[in-house]
Formats: sequence, structure tokens, C-alpha cells
Amino acid sequence: MSERVASAASAYRGQSITVVGGLGFIGSTVARALVRGGARVTVVDSMHPQHGGNPFNVADIADRIKTHVIDGADTTAMRPHVRDRSVVFNLAGQVSHVDSMTDPAGDLASNCGAALGVLEAIRLERSSARVVYTSTRQVYGRSQDGRIDETHAVQPVDVNGIHKVAAEEYHRLYAQVYGVNSVVLRLTNTYGPRQLLRHGRQGFVAWFVRLALLGAEIPLYAPGTQTRDFCYVDDAVDAILRVGLRDGVGFEVFNVGGSDTRSLKEFTETLLRITGTGAMRLVEYPADRKAIEIGSIAVSDQRLRLTTGWRPSVPLDEGLTRMIAYYRAHARHYLENCE
Amino acid sequence: MSERVASAASAYRGQSITVVGGLGFIGSTVARALVRGGARVTVVDSMHPQHGGNPFNVADIADRIKTHVIDGADTTAMRPHVRDRSVVFNLAGQVSHVDSMTDPAGDLASNCGAALGVLEAIRLERSSARVVYTSTRQVYGRSQDGRIDETHAVQPVDVNGIHKVAAEEYHRLYAQVYGVNSVVLRLTNTYGPRQLLRHGRQGFVAWFVRLALLGAEIPLYAPGTQTRDFCYVDDAVDAILRVGLRDGVGFEVFNVGGSDTRSLKEFTETLLRITGTGAMRLVEYPADRKAIEIGSIAVSDQRLRLTTGWRPSVPLDEGLTRMIAYYRAHARHYLENCE
Repeated sequence: MSERVASAASAYRGQSITVVGGLGFIGSTVARALVRGGARVTVVDSMHPQHGGNPFNVADIADRIKTHVIDGADTTAMRPHVRDRSVVFNLAGQVSHVDSMTDPAGDLASNCGAALGVLEAIRLERSSARVVYTSTRQVYGRSQDGRIDETHAVQPVDVNGIHKVAAEEYHRLYAQVYGVNSVVLRLTNTYGPRQLLRHGRQGFVAWFVRLALLGAEIPLYAPGTQTRDFCYVDDAVDAILRVGLRDGVGFEVFNVGGSDTRSLKEFTETLLRITGTGAMRLVEYPADRKAIEIGSIAVSDQRLRLTTGWRPSVPLDEGLTRMIAYYRAHARHYLENCE
Repeated sequence: MSERVASAASAYRGQSITVVGGLGFIGSTVARALVRGGARVTVVDSMHPQHGGNPFNVADIADRIKTHVIDGADTTAMRPHVRDRSVVFNLAGQVSHVDSMTDPAGDLASNCGAALGVLEAIRLERSSARVVYTSTRQVYGRSQDGRIDETHAVQPVDVNGIHKVAAEEYHRLYAQVYGVNSVVLRLTNTYGPRQLLRHGRQGFVAWFVRLALLGAEIPLYAPGTQTRDFCYVDDAVDAILRVGLRDGVGFEVFNVGGSDTRSLKEFTETLLRITGTGAMRLVEYPADRKAIEIGSIAVSDQRLRLTTGWRPSVPLDEGLTRMIAYYRAHARHYLENCE
């Protein structure tokens, strides 16, 4: 864990915190940081078989957290876990854009249902907990005018994006109508240890990392020149912990950018250099993915930087090196039963 | 039925049409018009106990339609009813703004779930059916700059509005990605025969009409000066039938305005004059309704008028007179078992 994350987490010492989706990739990294910072941490996770929940992500801190297998959409079950909390970090959700198109009803339940269920639990408990909700820069869809800040029009290109917009709107509404303070973070391509690798539908990073680790060929959709921001998970968690300290702000939205902006081809070359295994081949763009492709995108995170002092600290090369080392050490917990 | 509606419906002669939500207020009026126009009509309705489905609405044409009690969210059950159809009119939904705040998960299922379920049925069947989906001017929230046209910012003030925005977005997405042609109509305060009167949570018009019919006192939230557009159901159905004829247009959105713009107080005075029963009393604004109140609103429907030739033809006085006459003739089918 980086010093920045440890420092941000120490502000939560002694506080009671719930992390929804806390067995998943980013959620478990938040939970781990909070435990190290001295918070009392409750982890809630639906353990949906296609999502990122993996008990190994918190195996070494399992005796220092309370874990409950609950779907965030189950307001009744959620209520005890928002009671007397200072912050609820809601990292739960279905994150696959492709799956949202083949199973839109499942995405609806996992994204809208779970966001609403957590907010309803807070409303019904009259909890003063603040909420940090992780959304996605996918809500912007295709960039209309280059660099994207938080005032850019929202026009999602897939069902997942539509539901993330609705989930953001719930938070705005619950702040306005019920005074539930919340911060929405629109994350970009976040990568690092503890990410689901078992299937290739949660974004190209995890998919490509798996293929490289297995020494397989990465099918890069030609020409691979579209760019993405890359954010190492510790940097995303640093942002999440910083905004969780913002009290009495009503409702806020921040983009979280990355350390690096690279083309998919450059990213893949970097990855293959680090792993030393695997290969890359340019292939034709499949129709189902092309339909929801957004082209080059880069978000502006000036608002977050100016408001909280946040800045990314782990460059792509270093982050990928840490990520690959983690999966090589713990391969059987992430690379067995792959689809 | 007005001549305009009969004329619009005659364009559907011999076509196979499904009306989802077809036992409800506007849905049954669409179904009745289509039957009269010579279409083969299938009616699908969830018969949700709190929604507007009422078999009496189609009792006199029951032998000329096929009726199925199905929730639109049930894609599998919907599939046979979108097969080989030229148009699916989707009028289903939970329309109470107040109920959407007390039962947001129910609103999610009824609005997002049902809109998505119908579109999924069309996608999976590879049906060439066009969809007409009725949304609401509530998606705009509070007016930012006076008169509202379709380019006005969307910022709903309640859960129902959030879900209607998401449902609109599904239609845009399914047009772009799968080529499902659809038209979204943003309706304003629509009133007339066959509207649910059993409870007062589906907007003030039905609530006030019921109280006036029962000779009770109407509690008008002071000062009652905010204005609304009023659209008689035949005029709304005329718009619905006209846009259902628009083929190959991809995705379109139209506001449907009203014949009259009146303050709530003026509306109530008109209503009481027509019923000759009931009374009005100014009362303090209840907090739960104030929180989702949008102030004065008037929509521009120039786009619809210019594109389809539509214009409202039934002024408020005449529409309310017809509405009151209908409920006086059929009181027991709408005013029994009131909440």
C-alpha cells in the first residue's frame, strides 16, 4: 500500500465504516486500507458469481473485518450495516459493459437496484452516514469536445452507462430531498491487484493481463490507436478515501483520471514487456464491441485535484509491474476456473 | 372518440398491434381507437394493484381484442406479443411521483424493468416492430429558462423521473445499437375518462376530480398559482397514433403539450363549476410533496406540431365536461374500493 493511501486511511481511525462490494477489486482495496488505518470495517458483498467478489482479496485481514454476504438491493438486510456508520463506501456493481448488453435486466438489478437499496437503507435508518459511490467515465459516452470535465454532457453508449447515470441521480436526489450527503466518483480504467481475471468481460485491462500471464496471444482490435487513461488502484482508493472525508457538502461529482494516457497498443506493448510472456495480434473489431466503443477518451480531474489535493502517484509501468507480481504470487486464486 | 383520433387510427387498419399497459387509462384509449380503426389488437397489462389497469376500460370491446395479464418486464412472456407486430405501444408504468419516493424499488421494476423487458423481447425476436413509449415532461424537472422544448436539460426531481429518463435512454440505445425504431413522447398532465381515481397519488387531476365527484373538499396547496398544461386523453392518443406511423426514423423525442395552460387554482375552479359539487380550501404545502414540486411549467410542442400536423383539439372545459359525464355514468367501476 502506498504512503498516500495509508495517510488518507489514517483519518478514519476509530470510525465505523461499511464497504459495499468490499470483497471485490476496488472495494477490498478500500477495506484493506481502512483496516490498516484503524477503522472498524464492515464488508458487504453480494458474491454474485459473475462479479468481482473474491474472499481471497481480504483473506489476510478476515479476522479484523465483519463480512456479510448481502445484495445491496436488499434494503432490509442492509439497514443494520448503515446504522451508526460515518461513511458507506458503495463500490458494488456489475462493471461489464458487454454483459450489460446481453443481460440488461441483470445490470439493472446490480447497478440501479443496489445503489437504490443502500440509499433506502440510509433513509429508513435516518443514518447520518455519508456515501461515496463509484461511477464510471463511461457515463459521458463519446467525447464531444476533446477533454472531458464534469460539466461534459452525459450520453452513455451502453446499458451499463444508462444505469450508472440513474444511480448517480439517486445520490443527487437523496442529497436534495433527504439530506443524505454523497460524493460520486467517475472512475476511468482502474487496474491493479485483486481485479477479477476469470473472464474477459470486465474491460480490456484484466483480459489482456490474463492472456499475457498465460502466455497467450492478445487480440488487439485494430488499429488499437484509441487512447485511455490508466489509474492504479491505490490512486483510485486514495481518491475514494479523500472524498469520504468531505462532510456536509450535499452532493458532489468528481472525475478520477489516471497517471498515464496511452493508446491500447502502447498499453499492450508495456504489458508484454513487463510479463515477458504472451504476444499481440491485431484483429478486426467485433461488431458487438464496436457498437459500444467510445473512441479515444481522456478525462480532466482538475476538480478533484483542486478540491482534495489528490494526484495520481503510480505510473503505468510501476503499477503494471506490481499487478503482474501480485498475480504471479497468487495465481491460483484468480486464474482457476477461468471462462 | 374525436374525429381526429378516428382518422389517425384508420391508418392502422389490418395491422397487428400490441398495446402494453392496455388496460390502463391512456393505454385502453389507444386500444379502443385501434380497434375502431380496424387493427388487430393485443392488450398486455400487468394488472398491478396500485396501477391503472381496469378491465372495465375495455369491457365493451373485450371480444375484439386479445388480452394477456403479463408484466412487461417479463421478456420471455412478452416475446410472442411483439412477434410480427408493426407497432408496440408501450404505455405501461408506475406513474405516481409520490409512490416513487416511498417505494423506489417498485418504481424501478415497473418503469425501468418493463421498458427494458419490452425492448429485449423485440431484440430477441428480431421483430421489426416500432415502439412508441410514453414518458413524461417530469424528466425536465424544474424549468431553467421558461418554456421547455426537447433540448431543455433533463434533471428529474423524483425517482419516477430518474427512471423515465433511463427508460427513454434504453430506447435511444436500442435504436442506435440494434436498429429498433422508437418514438418517445413526453406527456404533460393528461386527463379524461378511464383514469384511475381509486387513490390520490397519480397526480392532482384525478385526485381533485374524485373529490369533486364525491362532493368533498379539495385541499389546494397554497397559493395554487403554479401553472400546468392540460391535455385531454383523446389529444394525447392522437399524438401517440400519429408518431406510431413514423417509420425508419431511428429514435425521436417529442413533447406533447396541452390545449390549455392554467394555474392549479383556475383548474380547480373550472372543475368545481362543471361538477357543481365539492369545494376548495387552500392548505399548507405538505413537506413530502413540496420536495418534489416543480413550480410552473409549460412545454413547447412545436416539434410535434411541425412534424406530424398534430394539435390539441379539446379545450379544458370540454374535456373536463366529458370526463365528469363519463365517471357519473360509470361511477361504480372507478369509485368503489377507494383508498
